[in-house]
Formats: sequence, structure tokens, C-alpha cells
Amino acid sequence: MKCRKCSGSAVINMRQHKLALCKEHFLDWVLTQTERNIQKYRMFNHNDQILVAVSGGKDSLALWDVLNKLGYQTGGLYIHLGISGENHYSDQSLDYVSNFAESRNLKLHIADIPEKFGKTIPQISKNSRRNKSKPCAICGLVKRHTMNEIAVQFHYDILVTGHNLDDEVSVLFNNTLSWQIDFLRRQSPVIPSKDGLPKKAKPFCRFYERETAAYSILSEIDYIEEECPFADGNTMIDNKNVLNQLEHEHAGTKLSFYLKFLKAKQILFPDIVSYFSPEETLQSCDSCGQPSPNKGICSFCRLIEETCK
Amino acid sequence: MKCRKCSGSAVINMRQHKLALCKEHFLDWVLTQTERNIQKYRMFNHNDQILVAVSGGKDSLALWDVLNKLGYQTGGLYIHLGISGENHYSDQSLDYVSNFAESRNLKLHIADIPEKFGKTIPQISKNSRRNKSKPCAICGLVKRHTMNEIAVQFHYDILVTGHNLDDEVSVLFNNTLSWQIDFLRRQSPVIPSKDGLPKKAKPFCRFYERETAAYSILSEIDYIEEECPFADGNTMIDNKNVLNQLEHEHAGTKLSFYLKFLKAKQILFPDIVSYFSPEETLQSCDSCGQPSPNKGICSFCRLIEETCK
Repeated sequence: MKCRKCSGSAVINMRQHKLALCKEHFLDWVLTQTERNIQKYRMFNHNDQILVAVSGGKDSLALWDVLNKLGYQTGGLYIHLGISGENHYSDQSLDYVSNFAESRNLKLHIADIPEKFGKTIPQISKNSRRNKSKPCAICGLVKRHTMNEIAVQFHYDILVTGHNLDDEVSVLFNNTLSWQIDFLRRQSPVIPSKDGLPKKAKPFCRFYERETAAYSILSEIDYIEEECPFADGNTMIDNKNVLNQLEHEHAGTKLSFYLKFLKAKQILFPDIVSYFSPEETLQSCDSCGQPSPNKGICSFCRLIEETCK
Repeated sequence: MKCRKCSGSAVINMRQHKLALCKEHFLDWVLTQTERNIQKYRMFNHNDQILVAVSGGKDSLALWDVLNKLGYQTGGLYIHLGISGENHYSDQSLDYVSNFAESRNLKLHIADIPEKFGKTIPQISKNSRRNKSKPCAICGLVKRHTMNEIAVQFHYDILVTGHNLDDEVSVLFNNTLSWQIDFLRRQSPVIPSKDGLPKKAKPFCRFYERETAAYSILSEIDYIEEECPFADGNTMIDNKNVLNQLEHEHAGTKLSFYLKFLKAKQILFPDIVSYFSPEETLQSCDSCGQPSPNKGICSFCRLIEETCK
């Protein structure tokens, strides 16, 4: 197969776009498309200070790389969760992130959960009253809180994450199967700042996972290939399989599902997208000061109180 | 496996309800659940004249049988579409329907499309400007128009169809994947009468296809097993496979998807459900008098004008 731009040998064929590209033109294409997304959804501009949440995986490191190449002012945030597994998952991820940042001379914030609270994520989850077999919900809560905290503390204008189209579509599909209106309302490429919570954006939301993977490999970004040891058997996995099947049968199904959802949202939820429903008023947490829909202390502080003290 | 009610030998296990039943208690259960749906969605009562649209297949004949056993006043409507195929599909279906009605002494209306318009559905479709490889869209338009016409002409209070949960969910899934808000708004177990269009209801909308099939077989209803020769390769089929897979992995997925959608609809579309969006005003068709969103003549009359004259 030949590159559409130069007739050189194509390294990737994107069926949904009927577009095959060589290495050079594919890497260019990723940059151009990212810039286009940033503009289209009014995510940020070149004056903004951007905090990139990085896990050490392909998506977030590719995103940081692209934003850096596009000339944006970025800092990274790595949250050390204390997850070990066979290969010391968290320590290894941090190595990848540190090497990435150092080699490009980029600022990196490290939030060390075990160091700060004396417990790892699996330990916090185990101690928690809502103890489940998997710490994923707890991990999400801790990460969200920490990202907000660092973004505000260091005066970043926006927090960005490496969520790709497959991530977005699998969440969307899950929320649609169960018609969770509040979650549907909240899903967006960009969420404005509210009551002290930072603005958030997902500049990669229109890239398929195989495209971010291809970008990382072709750009020779070293990233952790291992998945989080808790990811396996996740309830989302069945849905991902089904979505892959639909995509296989009709190339572009995922992209179309996502884009048509974004369009429908403007009619279904014409109020400005935000973290919480428009009716909800946010309180300041008595302990950490972060905005929260709960009175008294927020869910994060309650969790830490319950599990780490 | 034993029947939950009598410990007799179960003939069906409904995983989503964790309910296994013997023949007698399953047949009872279908009657009770249908009655419950009729009440829950305020479909009709024992004073209403009910027109049951019957195709000769398991769902519509089972529905007519159940309504008859529940003591409702029903008449049937068979629309002869002139579809032949290897086994004279339409003629054969009519035989099943006629036998059913005669043996129970029930009134049957027969609308004969080829007789009335001089052309069969496949011929009409072929002659049509929107000629596609399949006549399914044309067939739907003709059936909808004819059902409305007969219901009004013979003063029925309500028109009911045998759509089961699998039918409803596959339409819902399709409309959700493409976020067709106007179609989502319209999908409902019951649609009130509007501007001369009859009230409509789907009393079987919460039964899985295997349940209506089991009901028909166990009640010894003779029905046409052959599918319409045009049904194969339908675009809905891929989606049905995917939904079956989700159902297989988590029993009850389809039912939950449908019921949660109905609940969400009350928030998403709080206006009364109707044939058309609340903003649309209906005109009377200059030719047939049926209400239509178009000025002049309606889509059905335009089709007949174009293809049969």
C-alpha cells in the first residue's frame, strides 16, 4: 500500500479515513490533527501553561511529545500509585516518564501517594469500607483529586490527559448501555474550569488507539508496554471486544458513534458542559479546600481519613 | 432444572429474571406479564377495540392469542404485500393468519396491496425513484400507512404490534450508535393518538424473542417460521449479533438497556411522546387525508403516484 501524500511505502492504513500514510507523513498527520482538535474544541493556546498527566504509557507520552513539538508550554505530572505487580509497575512507569522528561528538558511533577499518605493504592483500597476486589475506583478518585490539586497549586491553566478514541468510546458505550445521563452529560473533549477546578481537555480524543501506538513506536518513544496489573478482567473489556467487532465490520463505527454523540449532546444538554450538573452547587471541602458536591469533607479526604490514619 | 412455582420439570430458564418455569406456569407467566405491561404503560382497557397487526409470524400471533385469552376485544389486520420468494411467503403467511382467526372466531381485516394498487411491494420498490436493492424501507412505509388507514376506517381505539424486546433493542441500539435524536424520542411502548393518527402500543416489548417463540410453540400456535426473503443480510443483523454476545456475557443486558433508556427518556425528552417532534405541525394529505408532516400529498401517496399509476 502506498502513502497518499508521497507514494512512498505506507506504514499505516486508516480505513475509517480511507487514508494510508508513510512514516513521515503519518507523524506529520498526527501533529496536524492534534492541532486541529485543540482549535476545534477551543482547548488552549500558546500562552497557556499546560499540565500533562502522564502514566508512562503510549498515549500520555505521545501526547506530551506532540504538544511539545507543537510548541506548547507543558509540564508533566506523574502520580506514583505504589502498584507493584511482577515488574514493579509504578517504579518502572516512573522510569519511562523521567527519562522522557529529562531527555527533552521538560518539567516533571511527581506526586508520590505512598510517600504522602503512608499507603499504596492497593493498601488504601483494601482498608476502605468500599473494599472491592479491584482498586480501580479508588485509584480513579485519588488520581482525579491529585491532578486537580497539582494543577491548581502550580497555577496551570489546563490539565490534559491522553485519553484516545477507544477509551472515550468504551466509556461512552458503557454509559449508554446503562443510560447514565449525568455521566453522558459530563463526557466531553473539553470541560471548562469551575469553582476552582481546573479546565480539562483530551487532545487525542479522536485518535484510535492503534494510531497513538503507531505514533509512539514510529517516534521511538520508550513507554511501558505492560498494562496495570489490575486492568485485566475489567468490566470494560467485554464492551471493548464488542466495539472492536463493530469497527471491524464497519470501519469508522467508533469515530462516528463518538462524533454523533458530541453533536447530539448539544441538543440533549444545551447547558454548558461542566464537572457537575448545572443544578449542583459545590462546597469547599473542610479539609483540603477542593470543591465538592458533598457538605463537610470531600470523598477523597474521607477516604484518606478512613484508610490511612 | 425445576419450575420455581411447582417444582415440576422446567421448560424454560429465563436467566435475566433468574426464573425457570414449567409449561403451565410459563404460559401463565406470559399472560400475567402482558397484562402488567398493558397496565404499566396505560396501553388500553377492556372497553377498547384493539386492532392487532399480524404478519403470520410467532410474535404477532402469540400477541393476538394472549390478548384474546386476557379477554380483550380484538380484530386482526393482515397486510398482503405480494412477496413471493421460494415458498410464496405472503400467501403462506395469510394462510396461517386466516386459520388462526377462523379457529378462534376472530374478526380479520385483509388489506391486499397488489389487488388495491396493481403492484406488489417488490414491484413498487423497483419502480420507485428511491429504488434500493431491498424493498424494506418502502415496505415499512406502506405498512404504516395501511395500519393507520384501517385502524381509523374501522374505528379502532388502538393499534398494537407484536414487537418484542429483541426488536426494540436492536432499533434502539442502531439509533443510539448513530445518535438519531428524533428516532430515540419516538421509541416508546405506547404512543398516544395525534391529529387523527391512532394510538399505538407494543404489549410484548419486554419479552425476549425466545420467550415469544416458546410461548407460540408451547401454545401450539401454527405460525410461519420462514423469515421474509428480504430479511437476510439486513444491516440490523450485525448489531443483533453484537447484542446477543453482550446478553450472553451478562444475562439481562438487553432488558436493562431498554428499561434504562425508557427511564432516561423521561428526563431527556420530558414532552409527551408522539409520532413527530412537538414542534412539527401536521397537515392533512391532499390525496388520502392522513396527517403528514409534508405539505401537499404525503410520502405514501407520492410513492403510489410515482410507482403504480
